Amino acid sequence: MKDNMTNEKIKVAYLDGARNLVLSTKDKPEIKEDEVLIKVKSVGICGSDVLYYRTGGTKRRPITRPFILGHELSGIVEKKGKKVENLDVGDRVAVEPGITCGRCIYCKSGRYNLCRSVKFLATPPVDGAFVEYISHKADLVYRLPDCISFDEGALIEPSSVAFYAVIKSDLKPSMSSLILGAGPIGLLILQIAKISGSFPVCVLDVDSYRLSLAKKLGADFTLNTNNKDIVQALANSDCDNEYDVVFECTGVETVISSSIFLAKRGGTIAMVGIFDGVTPLRTKEIIDREINVKGTYRSANVFGDVIKLVERKMLDVKSIITHTFNLDEIEKAFEIADKRLENCVKIIIRVS
Amino acid sequence: MKDNMTNEKIKVAYLDGARNLVLSTKDKPEIKEDEVLIKVKSVGICGSDVLYYRTGGTKRRPITRPFILGHELSGIVEKKGKKVENLDVGDRVAVEPGITCGRCIYCKSGRYNLCRSVKFLATPPVDGAFVEYISHKADLVYRLPDCISFDEGALIEPSSVAFYAVIKSDLKPSMSSLILGAGPIGLLILQIAKISGSFPVCVLDVDSYRLSLAKKLGADFTLNTNNKDIVQALANSDCDNEYDVVFECTGVETVISSSIFLAKRGGTIAMVGIFDGVTPLRTKEIIDREINVKGTYRSANVFGDVIKLVERKMLDVKSIITHTFNLDEIEKAFEIADKRLENCVKIIIRVS
Amino acid sequence: MKDNMTNEKIKVAYLDGARNLVLSTKDKPEIKEDEVLIKVKSVGICGSDVLYYRTGGTKRRPITRPFILGHELSGIVEKKGKKVENLDVGDRVAVEPGITCGRCIYCKSGRYNLCRSVKFLATPPVDGAFVEYISHKADLVYRLPDCISFDEGALIEPSSVAFYAVIKSDLKPSMSSLILGAGPIGLLILQIAKISGSFPVCVLDVDSYRLSLAKKLGADFTLNTNNKDIVQALANSDCDNEYDVVFECTGVETVISSSIFLAKRGGTIAMVGIFDGVTPLRTKEIIDREINVKGTYRSANVFGDVIKLVERKMLDVKSIITHTFNLDEIEKAFEIADKRLENCVKIIIRVS
Amino acid sequence: MKDNMTNEKIKVAYLDGARNLVLSTKDKPEIKEDEVLIKVKSVGICGSDVLYYRTGGTKRRPITRPFILGHELSGIVEKKGKKVENLDVGDRVAVEPGITCGRCIYCKSGRYNLCRSVKFLATPPVDGAFVEYISHKADLVYRLPDCISFDEGALIEPSSVAFYAVIKSDLKPSMSSLILGAGPIGLLILQIAKISGSFPVCVLDVDSYRLSLAKKLGADFTLNTNNKDIVQALANSDCDNEYDVVFECTGVETVISSSIFLAKRGGTIAMVGIFDGVTPLRTKEIIDREINVKGTYRSANVFGDVIKLVERKMLDVKSIITHTFNLDEIEKAFEIADKRLENCVKIIIRVS
Repeated sequence: MKDNMTNEKIKVAYLDGARNLVLSTKDKPEIKEDEVLIKVKSVGICGSDVLYYRTGGTKRRPITRPFILGHELSGIVEKKGKKVENLDVGDRVAVEPGITCGRCIYCKSGRYNLCRSVKFLATPPVDGAFVEYISHKADLVYRLPDCISFDEGALIEPSSVAFYAVIKSDLKPSMSSLILGAGPIGLLILQIAKISGSFPVCVLDVDSYRLSLAKKLGADFTLNTNNKDIVQALANSDCDNEYDVVFECTGVETVISSSIFLAKRGGTIAMVGIFDGVTPLRTKEIIDREINVKGTYRSANVFGDVIKLVERKMLDVKSIITHTFNLDEIEKAFEIADKRLENCVKIIIRVS
Repeated sequence: MKDNMTNEKIKVAYLDGARNLVLSTKDKPEIKEDEVLIKVKSVGICGSDVLYYRTGGTKRRPITRPFILGHELSGIVEKKGKKVENLDVGDRVAVEPGITCGRCIYCKSGRYNLCRSVKFLATPPVDGAFVEYISHKADLVYRLPDCISFDEGALIEPSSVAFYAVIKSDLKPSMSSLILGAGPIGLLILQIAKISGSFPVCVLDVDSYRLSLAKKLGADFTLNTNNKDIVQALANSDCDNEYDVVFECTGVETVISSSIFLAKRGGTIAMVGIFDGVTPLRTKEIIDREINVKGTYRSANVFGDVIKLVERKMLDVKSIITHTFNLDEIEKAFEIADKRLENCVKIIIRVS
Repeated sequence: MKDNMTNEKIKVAYLDGARNLVLSTKDKPEIKEDEVLIKVKSVGICGSDVLYYRTGGTKRRPITRPFILGHELSGIVEKKGKKVENLDVGDRVAVEPGITCGRCIYCKSGRYNLCRSVKFLATPPVDGAFVEYISHKADLVYRLPDCISFDEGALIEPSSVAFYAVIKSDLKPSMSSLILGAGPIGLLILQIAKISGSFPVCVLDVDSYRLSLAKKLGADFTLNTNNKDIVQALANSDCDNEYDVVFECTGVETVISSSIFLAKRGGTIAMVGIFDGVTPLRTKEIIDREINVKGTYRSANVFGDVIKLVERKMLDVKSIITHTFNLDEIEKAFEIADKRLENCVKIIIRVS
Repeated sequence: MKDNMTNEKIKVAYLDGARNLVLSTKDKPEIKEDEVLIKVKSVGICGSDVLYYRTGGTKRRPITRPFILGHELSGIVEKKGKKVENLDVGDRVAVEPGITCGRCIYCKSGRYNLCRSVKFLATPPVDGAFVEYISHKADLVYRLPDCISFDEGALIEPSSVAFYAVIKSDLKPSMSSLILGAGPIGLLILQIAKISGSFPVCVLDVDSYRLSLAKKLGADFTLNTNNKDIVQALANSDCDNEYDVVFECTGVETVISSSIFLAKRGGTIAMVGIFDGVTPLRTKEIIDREINVKGTYRSANVFGDVIKLVERKMLDVKSIITHTFNLDEIEKAFEIADKRLENCVKIIIRVS
């Protein structure tokens, strides 16, 4: 089923040990009959990419060979398998990065983000997208309208994570939201909360540039907690002390611990930011105030919705892009991302 | 509006400092036009009663005067206010112990268990029911059918807590349940899980008598964890390792910490048992496996349903009553409850 | 408990038989301890008022005496009962018109709009608000911020009906909506659908003025069906043929029949407009395409939310007010409403 | 990919025009790499089979050639494609009859029963299972435990329809159910309602044998309406007049019309029985009493659950099987089914 004619070499950036990104070449991938070959255009750097860059692989997900990062991507369809009906050569596209089994109860029941057999780009041992071409299952590739740029197209994936978190939180018009953390996900959740009719929407962070971006993108209140206790910081501010929905997007231990006190009685905490340790939580608060703590993992069934939101200019993804680099500048890009230099928020690598 | 004729004295048991219960008398209460006077028959000893008995009042809820415990009660309507339409003198009744404001958004929207202005029996400073007569708002008093004894009637309240937890957990037929803790609430949840069509239902405890009761009441599996790590204990047993719904009914720190690993991907943990401290929780598990952690507090809108379940013999509350005492034996009763002597599960005081 | 000093006379408009409104006087009402006396300012004319005006009472709700219409009102608190804590004399207020029992399972569980014992203003035999003063239960009276005019305040009630319908429909961001009927409720639902992030939102009517208003208020598409078959009309238009949520706000038999074909597979039809007869419905469509048909009746628990939406200028209620009259012009106002003259949409009577 | 060696002939029953079933032979089917070859054992006759038999094809689904009926089947895996991992040769199995596309938004979001591209056995032009062998996608084939007979295995499909309807109805313990129609689906819903903790469960029909079966299978009340108005029939009986959930399983026009009056305020009607015409419905009742009318179509994601229910003897499918025939007696079997002779409920054809 494979076409073995070509031995064409393509450019790639490998992670080869902690903080070591190497530019190299590899064979151009071939495609199966239900796949498309995508010429990769823009790829965003995600927090998980930075974590692998920093550590060279985690305990749970070790990296044992030169490895390709990157899972937030846009590109152009260059070739399609014979069974592909939803796409044409030349289509500008965004890519849903998790290839799931389609057969387990999670896949069948629509919660495919929980599939145990998922092959997710840039999640070891599955390679990612800092490479000129990737093959991908056509069903997971979405056509972009012309009005969405490739850089914006690379942001459909993180926007889907944000959209999914808001949908799961059951936020309704006139409910209030608190967003802990004004990173890319927090800034996207902020906008989707506003689109959902939430108010007031309050955003907390320790970075005044990110908070200024939050303000620009529609936050009703922003608060710089200056690394102090956030319960106290809110109490001393003009902001409400309790919210219908709290979105925890920091993954910071102390913030997770505090989040439990910031939801209203009967409210919801959407857990989005990952902390890989144990957090001291006062579970009595969860009971006494009947809080609903909902884990929300990646996304499912929302790529199409998010593309429509960006197409209609309801969701501004462009404003969170602070830096763009070419593939051969990838090391500099990761250094900026790793050390959070230059007020970076979302950094895009233009692969080709 | 009050009828001041009588100065009739009635029997009462006061808590007067830690582990000091005193039999005494007090004035017979008077009733308002929307209240009934209830001759108290049977009152169950709840874990919260034991906590006040042991401590003489908690930091959050101090007790500063002789105080009456008890909020799980049945009785007979002896007198009714002129506006009372739902009850007649002579009715055998169970009592919903929380008098809520009826005006706040929680009350109006049906989540009255979250009302901030609630006056809940035996929750300081509101006196409870180890007393011959209480007055209570008639709307919160429910007629018992003849086939339900007074002792069983005293168990309508804890059964409501259990029923409410199961309803909130969204348990559906053929979903599996794990019940952590085979105390009264755990044993009631077990039965209501079975009534809801759940299987298998597995119950864990460290007390073999309680587990034998769980078996008798329908548990598909029971496991004595012998104070060992429960994740390991399950892994080494014939029971499933993960469940659709986990009911945490122990309030034990280490069990709460472990519970997070025992729900299936996409599953639910209903938090019922209260631990008044901080618990180390691996919140990454909540995200990666998209767990829903739901606090469930007391109950709302289920007393009528529970009475029907007991009436139809679907819910066996009698089997969890291990001891009954008269009011003048209350100190012995609390000692047994406090030290968990004599395989006690639910202890009933027959007040009159 | 009543204060019987005054025999002060106040102005009132009675309905005394079909199409016969009579200006008269009546005694100023007295208040109970949990009530407030409201000087009525603005009252909207609702479709149900027009129905009673036209018929002089319906078979199911006959009117057997001079009767006061009007249940969409704002006013000023002139006096308060001694138990009233949520309001002060001088407060500008909107009024939730249904006084419910507070004791039935519907009231207790938060679905008080379904209370069988409700006393709803201007629903025979309960008098309404085309009168200088009414007494009302204080818990159902909501303070208006200064930025909301009395005319706008009169629209909180219909806006609540619209808001409640949207909440019940489970509309989420990026879902599409079809609104059948651009009367006051349809125009309010349109705006709340937009606030909820719905798109596209399409509005159908046979009145081009109302459709121009829909366009102004944010409709993505409007379509004049010119009394033709609406399924065909949509098929011949640029609009989508099927929608995630259809809001039926016409109460017109043929439109109700057609609505079933306009929801997507798995979609929802919110039934809002009342037709008092039998409608031929192809229920096979409900099954084959798994449609969810949800009745939505009046509103519950949303007055506070709606006031916030108007306060924040998210909901424009002013634009749907086309006419205002003084109380002594009420007959002319009802004639215009009855015959739909002068492009009327919402007509307000300024009672005092 | 196909193995063209064999020209083996297998037995089959064709429908060749209205009420004309012809025994014949056909080629043994071949399998693709993700399929299994199933030796068909037992096949149930469904109402839809009878409809095609009676009419020789409907307007919407015409039959233009000899056609194979039957979609409720069990069998044995005789051969498997090389990609099949979930099954082994020799497995006893039940078959989910709808092959869906796996790519549309309905498939991806878990509502695959709404897939527009479904190929459903015995739904023209897709042939069914009254044939010795069928090939089928392995993902839709479920292993049966030894304790479930082939005849019972044929009933997993209709049981799934019933289970799905109950899950969609949101029936909870202590809620009451009314089941209109005691055919196979009604009798299965009855049992699953009981498993879900519903009471009382009342079943209506015009066939006293079927009602006796309902009684045997756990109905709390049964009522023979003798073709009279069912609202009146209930009003004159000992049964409740209104129910939390009404399951409409008759597909009879007048019963559908009446069902609207039999749900409680705020209750649910699950529409299961298909009537291929327009039904006069009083939609005002849907609004005034805020009824939720839910279409429920075939099933999704419940085969595994249902097999467990039968395995654990919680669901008695055997009792509704009244007749079994061999394949060469199929004409007699359909005549009995068509004319409802001999108190037939579910008729099974033992194909091999």
